[in-house]
Amino acid sequence: MSVLSRFQQGDFRALSRIISFVENRKDGYRELLGNLYRQSGRAIRIGVTGPPGAGKSTLVNRLAHTYFAGGSKVGIVAVDPTSPFTGGALLGDRVRMNEFEPGSGVFFRSMATRGASGGLASSTDNVAIVLDAFGFDVVLIETVGVGQVELDIVDACDVVLVVVVPESGDSVQTMKAGLMEIADIMVVNKADRPGSDKIISELNTTMQMRQPADSDWAVPVVATVAIKNENIDVLCGRLTEYLDFKREAGVFEEERRRRIEKKILAILINRFHDEFVDRLTQQVEFEQYVDETYQGKSSPYDIADELYRRFSGKQL
Amino acid sequence: MSVLSRFQQGDFRALSRIISFVENRKDGYRELLGNLYRQSGRAIRIGVTGPPGAGKSTLVNRLAHTYFAGGSKVGIVAVDPTSPFTGGALLGDRVRMNEFEPGSGVFFRSMATRGASGGLASSTDNVAIVLDAFGFDVVLIETVGVGQVELDIVDACDVVLVVVVPESGDSVQTMKAGLMEIADIMVVNKADRPGSDKIISELNTTMQMRQPADSDWAVPVVATVAIKNENIDVLCGRLTEYLDFKREAGVFEEERRRRIEKKILAILINRFHDEFVDRLTQQVEFEQYVDETYQGKSSPYDIADELYRRFSGKQL
Repeated sequence: MSVLSRFQQGDFRALSRIISFVENRKDGYRELLGNLYRQSGRAIRIGVTGPPGAGKSTLVNRLAHTYFAGGSKVGIVAVDPTSPFTGGALLGDRVRMNEFEPGSGVFFRSMATRGASGGLASSTDNVAIVLDAFGFDVVLIETVGVGQVELDIVDACDVVLVVVVPESGDSVQTMKAGLMEIADIMVVNKADRPGSDKIISELNTTMQMRQPADSDWAVPVVATVAIKNENIDVLCGRLTEYLDFKREAGVFEEERRRRIEKKILAILINRFHDEFVDRLTQQVEFEQYVDETYQGKSSPYDIADELYRRFSGKQL
Repeated sequence: MSVLSRFQQGDFRALSRIISFVENRKDGYRELLGNLYRQSGRAIRIGVTGPPGAGKSTLVNRLAHTYFAGGSKVGIVAVDPTSPFTGGALLGDRVRMNEFEPGSGVFFRSMATRGASGGLASSTDNVAIVLDAFGFDVVLIETVGVGQVELDIVDACDVVLVVVVPESGDSVQTMKAGLMEIADIMVVNKADRPGSDKIISELNTTMQMRQPADSDWAVPVVATVAIKNENIDVLCGRLTEYLDFKREAGVFEEERRRRIEKKILAILINRFHDEFVDRLTQQVEFEQYVDETYQGKSSPYDIADELYRRFSGKQL
């Protein structure tokens, strides 16, 4: 039986192999994704992000257990963009551990982060499409780190949780502005620690002040202690409320369409890169162009102009 | 007299206007850059990066004063990539201040960081080309922040300084790995503070252990107190040594060629984005494609395939 048939029948090992196929962009991966895409669209994507040390992994695991116990099929994608300054262990965060045994019913996958950072968001999205097509009801996407890549990743989620901890203190002050813009729900995790009440009330005030006039969703602040499983049910309740709100307001549909739009453009840029730009560098001719420029006879702008015109023989 | 004529005569205000023109990608900016590029290639680009709070700005100012006093024309470009989590003030770093008055002889420019992060590195490179063409001998490029964008920016420099402080302590431990790979010279700034000796000896040991077998350059660790102007002359000495080493080893030429190569490819991708992808979204037809996909009749991969084939009428 082929890998794809076993995938269709719900085999986790076949799923893993197909994810690797897609991640490594093997020949034919776009066609495969095109087919799987038509089976996708049911899964809810929950993005979980925030500063290192906030307990995101534990929270994601608890959410997975809770949804699974409620009868949902759950997949987790853990992304840890490699920082040039830390080689991955950004500000002391450890590598994400998988506590789900094979056969536990919850599927866990960490993303390989080697390669271009520009491609990581698009790879994560591809993997989420595979999980969706496989039949998961809930796909949890966890990003460990702080940066543009995380923003791109959670941008393709139906709901975004931003997780902070009481200790964040001053740093949360400085981070509020940026966090506000991406959070649909704020989570103060490790809320049994000192300073919890203060940060919750601060966040509530900030959220109220910053709520856009045209939005009917007031970003709630949920206090959790993930490691003790405290308030995870409350958080799930908020998640359901938010998704209901989005559906009723028509935002859900609108966002999914915007996501399709972005996806088409991302694939186009990707192809241009793979099929034109990458091949260029392998041509003898290209070395001559570089020579000319190095000798001051031309400029990169003129060379690019010539190459581009040659490529785009038929303009739009 | 035209702006370009005044630029050629060394007018700082004309320089500022041309930088804005290039930064805002006004019509014709590629042609202008193509012309300026032929006048460029003389300037040495010094990249200065490292974690927030390391005193990079003060150090850059001191280097600028020292080079200027030695008869060099000096330009500074300060880049502060906006973090999605902090809205720019990453981990408490302030906005870069300019201490150089008009007429001081040192030109200072901070980069506008709005817009796509992918474009920031390419914009910074364009501005560096303009400064080079203007006639600066030394272009100091300072990046405030931590991430992939900084890596891309310093990648286009002739020499990279990584600046840390004694207080970094544990975080430097975790950062060493990534820092090592990009540093040509390590600077321990604020070296009059406690813990300085320890970090310097730690860094020296790490550098020695990690030195690639094929490299003849041993990354030196220089202790400075930028605010008191201490050891800036020693640092300048190391910079000269490094550049001499690179020239003698033929690395300088090799890197400059590699930079040209990368630049041509970056311009190509940029053009594809501006002239094809961006225009697509403005077409009525594109909305229909999104509709089809939303209704499950197609997939983003199939749509992209069709659009791509239409564009690349003439393949390589």
